[in-house]
Amino acid sequence: MNPEFENQPTAEQAAAKIRLMGFDVDGTLTDGGLYFGNEGEVMKRFSVFDGQGLRLLMDHGIKVVWITARSSAIVEKRAKDLGIYQLVQGCKTKLQAYDDIRQSLGLDWQECGFFGDDWPDYPVLKKVALAATTPHSPVLMKKSANWFNTRPAGDGAARELCDFILSNQTGYRNPWEIQ
Amino acid sequence: MNPEFENQPTAEQAAAKIRLMGFDVDGTLTDGGLYFGNEGEVMKRFSVFDGQGLRLLMDHGIKVVWITARSSAIVEKRAKDLGIYQLVQGCKTKLQAYDDIRQSLGLDWQECGFFGDDWPDYPVLKKVALAATTPHSPVLMKKSANWFNTRPAGDGAARELCDFILSNQTGYRNPWEIQ
Amino acid sequence: MNPEFENQPTAEQAAAKIRLMGFDVDGTLTDGGLYFGNEGEVMKRFSVFDGQGLRLLMDHGIKVVWITARSSAIVEKRAKDLGIYQLVQGCKTKLQAYDDIRQSLGLDWQECGFFGDDWPDYPVLKKVALAATTPHSPVLMKKSANWFNTRPAGDGAARELCDFILSNQTGYRNPWEIQ
Amino acid sequence: MNPEFENQPTAEQAAAKIRLMGFDVDGTLTDGGLYFGNEGEVMKRFSVFDGQGLRLLMDHGIKVVWITARSSAIVEKRAKDLGIYQLVQGCKTKLQAYDDIRQSLGLDWQECGFFGDDWPDYPVLKKVALAATTPHSPVLMKKSANWFNTRPAGDGAARELCDFILSNQTGYRNPWEIQ
Repeated sequence: MNPEFENQPTAEQAAAKIRLMGFDVDGTLTDGGLYFGNEGEVMKRFSVFDGQGLRLLMDHGIKVVWITARSSAIVEKRAKDLGIYQLVQGCKTKLQAYDDIRQSLGLDWQECGFFGDDWPDYPVLKKVALAATTPHSPVLMKKSANWFNTRPAGDGAARELCDFILSNQTGYRNPWEIQ
Repeated sequence: MNPEFENQPTAEQAAAKIRLMGFDVDGTLTDGGLYFGNEGEVMKRFSVFDGQGLRLLMDHGIKVVWITARSSAIVEKRAKDLGIYQLVQGCKTKLQAYDDIRQSLGLDWQECGFFGDDWPDYPVLKKVALAATTPHSPVLMKKSANWFNTRPAGDGAARELCDFILSNQTGYRNPWEIQ
Repeated sequence: MNPEFENQPTAEQAAAKIRLMGFDVDGTLTDGGLYFGNEGEVMKRFSVFDGQGLRLLMDHGIKVVWITARSSAIVEKRAKDLGIYQLVQGCKTKLQAYDDIRQSLGLDWQECGFFGDDWPDYPVLKKVALAATTPHSPVLMKKSANWFNTRPAGDGAARELCDFILSNQTGYRNPWEIQ
Repeated sequence: MNPEFENQPTAEQAAAKIRLMGFDVDGTLTDGGLYFGNEGEVMKRFSVFDGQGLRLLMDHGIKVVWITARSSAIVEKRAKDLGIYQLVQGCKTKLQAYDDIRQSLGLDWQECGFFGDDWPDYPVLKKVALAATTPHSPVLMKKSANWFNTRPAGDGAARELCDFILSNQTGYRNPWEIQ
C-alpha cells in the first residue's frame, strides 16, 4: 500500500481500478519448491487453476507481468504459453522494473497491483494500490499489504486473487457464465 | 445438473443409472499441478488409488472417458495404461465432444456423469445427471453440481467418486470383497 | 487379521512377535502419486524418514519384503539401496507371493505383518497377525486391520509402523539411543 | 542441548550467540522426499523461501554448513548456488564432522546450532546450544532440542529458524526493512 496516496483505497476499491497486475513467480505462482537435479533446477510446479485465472484477467484487458529475481527457461516457457504481457527475469531491483512498465503504459500507481511473498517484493508492495502477499510473508510485508491468499501458493492463490480483482471491476461478466 | 430433466435426480439416484462417466484431467485426476521444465510440461501427478477406482468402474461396464482442453503425450500414456474407453485432448468445446460420445453410445443424459473443476467443464455439468465438481470450483459451477469430493483432487477424489457411483448401482458387488 | 487364529492378538501383541514384515509400495511407501511423463512413469516419491525406519527394522533382524502389483526399475533401485530381503513386482496374487516367502522362512502367520492400502492387499491382511492399512482404505479392509497410520503415506506412515513394531519387541534398544 | 553447559541457555539466548549453524539436508531443508527414477534419485525439493533465510543468515556473518549422510550432485549444486560455507556429504559421523568445522573456526559450543530431524543428527543435537528438530522426530531427540519448527520441513521450516536466530541477535536489522 502506497503511503503517499491521498485516500488509501481498500483492497476492493484498488481491485476495481487495476489495469496492471504484477506477480512474483516462486512462492506465489508456484509452491515455492525449487526442484533440483544434478544440473540445477529441473522443474517448477505451476497450477492449471491459476493459469485459468490469469487468462480471465488478460481477456478482460488487464496487463499481466511477472517479475522474478531468479532466472530460468522454465518460467519463460510457462509465461509464453499463457501469453502474459511481459516477463522480467534475473531482476535484482523489482521496483525499478515494475515502474518502467507502469510508466510505459502511462498508468497511475492507483491502477497497479502486485503479488509477492518475500523481501525482494517489499519495495513494490509499498507503491501499488493492490498489495497482495501471503500469510507466511514477513510481518512488515503483511503490514504493507491489503490482500492475503487463503488458498495455497501455486495451488489456487493466484486464481483467488484474479477472481477477487475481476469481481470488483465494474460491470464485469465472466464469459463462461453467460454462455 | 440438467434443468431440463422432468424429475431432478439426487446424486444417489443419478449414480445408480450411470453408464458413461467423463472426467476432466487437470485438477480432477491430477492435483492441478503443471510441472514445467525447460521444454514445457515434463510430468503430471496421477494417483494409483484413483486408477484402481477407474478400473472398478470399467470392470462393471461403465464407459470412462477423459476430456481435456490441454494436450500431452503424458495423458495419452496414462489413459492407455488404464484402458479407458476414449480420450479427447486439446478440446475447446467439451460439451460437443461429450455429446458426440453419448449419442454414439445411444445413451440418455440421465445415464451420464461428469467430473470437472473449472469453467471449461461448466457446459457439460449443466447437462449430465451426475454433475461432480470440487470445493474450490467457481460458485456458479457448484450450484450446478450435485456431488463434491472430500478427498484431494489427484489424491483420492476420483476414487471417492467411483466408489460412490458403484455403491449406488443396484446389486453391485466389489469383486475383491467376495473373493 | 486372521480369523483362524485361536487367540486374536492385539496390534501390540502381534508387533511383539513380528519376524517378517511386508509392504505394498504405492500408497504406503509412497504418497500414491504416479508421476507420468511422455514415456510413462518417471519417478516415485519415497521418504528418507521411512527408509530409516526400514533400516532399523532390518538391523533388528526382521525380514522386510515389498510386494507390488505394478512393476518398475524405480522400485528395484530403491529396494536395492535399502537392502530389503525380497522384492516382488508385477504381482497379481499377493497372498501367494507372501505365503511363499513366509513358508521359505519357516514362519507362522502369527509372526507376520503386512501394510497395504487397497484391494489387492486385502487377501494378505486377512492372514497376517499385524494387519496395517490406511485411514482412506476401503471400509472392509479397515475392518480386517488392527493398525492404522496417522502420518501420511510416503511421508512417515511406514516409519510410524516400524517404530511401533520395534517398541513392542521385548528388550529392543534403538542403537542410536544408547550411543 | 549440551548437558555439560554450566548455564543451560534458552533457545533465545542460544540464538543470540550463534556464529555457526549446521543443517541436515533431507527432511529439514527438503520435505524428506526421495524422488527416485530408474537410475536412482532424480531430484530434491528445496524451498526458495528457506534459501532467502539462509542468505540473510550468511549476510549477517553466520557460517552455514550442511552435513548429510546421503550423497548427491543435487545437494552440491544447491549448496553452491547458495554459497554456503561448507558441505559435508556421505557423512556417517556427523558429530565428528561438525566438531572439526567448529574447532577450525575457533568457536565454543555455546556459539553453535544444528537443525536435524532423525537419529544420525542426535549426537550433534546433544552438543550444540541451539538444538533444532522437527515435531515428528523421535521423542528422545525432542527432549534434547530447544527449538521446533511450526512450518513444514522443506517449506519454510529452515526460514522460520533463520528468522528466529536473526531476531535474537543484538542490534540486527534486516537490510530489506531499512531500505
